[in-house]
Amino acid sequence: MSLKKYIRDIQGFPKEGILFKDITPLLIDPKGRAECLKILVDSLKGKQIDKVIGVESRGFFFGILIAQELNVGFIPVRKPNKLPFDTISASYDLEYGTDTLEIHTDAIQKGDRILIHDDVLATGGTAQAVCELVERLGGEIVQLNFLMEISFLKGREKIKEYEIFTAITY
Amino acid sequence: MSLKKYIRDIQGFPKEGILFKDITPLLIDPKGRAECLKILVDSLKGKQIDKVIGVESRGFFFGILIAQELNVGFIPVRKPNKLPFDTISASYDLEYGTDTLEIHTDAIQKGDRILIHDDVLATGGTAQAVCELVERLGGEIVQLNFLMEISFLKGREKIKEYEIFTAITY
Repeated sequence: MSLKKYIRDIQGFPKEGILFKDITPLLIDPKGRAECLKILVDSLKGKQIDKVIGVESRGFFFGILIAQELNVGFIPVRKPNKLPFDTISASYDLEYGTDTLEIHTDAIQKGDRILIHDDVLATGGTAQAVCELVERLGGEIVQLNFLMEISFLKGREKIKEYEIFTAITY
Repeated sequence: MSLKKYIRDIQGFPKEGILFKDITPLLIDPKGRAECLKILVDSLKGKQIDKVIGVESRGFFFGILIAQELNVGFIPVRKPNKLPFDTISASYDLEYGTDTLEIHTDAIQKGDRILIHDDVLATGGTAQAVCELVERLGGEIVQLNFLMEISFLKGREKIKEYEIFTAITY
């Protein structure tokens, strides 16, 4: 797919053995960025979305662009101790140890129709934690929406009860 | 100013004695967000901008929205070890210790006309470090642009050689 030309492979980042997908060439190219945004937004045709979640930090970029395009609210889901108001949190497993994400308790009202956006679907642990946060606050997950999916990591299996859209598949 | 109604005061965050300005009510309100974006973009009328910098993380939100509105490139300036490609860095003083920011070396070409966006102008240390990064890469700073200015902290004095715009002043 043509969007792949805006993604830069970085070998050995953040540590040896990892092939990192760098999205900064996509962010800096207004044509590629607009094309990517259109693909993400087109995937939502006919769906009612009340609020878009962007996951810290690379999910903030297209997350807020989608929210702006749809003219709906944007909610940041953040690492611990970044959100200043009342929060709930969910943890997920990493290769070594765990990580935690937080959301403001007043960000979602019962029945809100939520789009979750992040840059990468890898093992699916992050996505699963965000789904848990949304549902604990009574939100309905309409779609999980990613720039990229690293398919050999099979993250899709962890969130298979939801609708998933990815703009680029590796 | 009317945008102040979208900013929530949080007493004692991230630590005692600090009155934190929470922008999440602005992000979640499509009307307030659009109004704020218009004010920021209107401040650039008649100026040519080639690229917009957003400073991690809260500068990412309106930074990329402004870049999208202007149809120009977006560049994230990030905390250390987050940007995967070749970077340069600049440090700045905090109350205790120092902090560092990085930019990709290929993000700015000589002569690029740059808008720097961040959420808050407080002591000005962050802004000064970002200006240093832009100028070391040969960029021209057209404007520094903030959602909010905490004026008693006098950050403006550290960057007084540049044009500064703030949507909300406290």
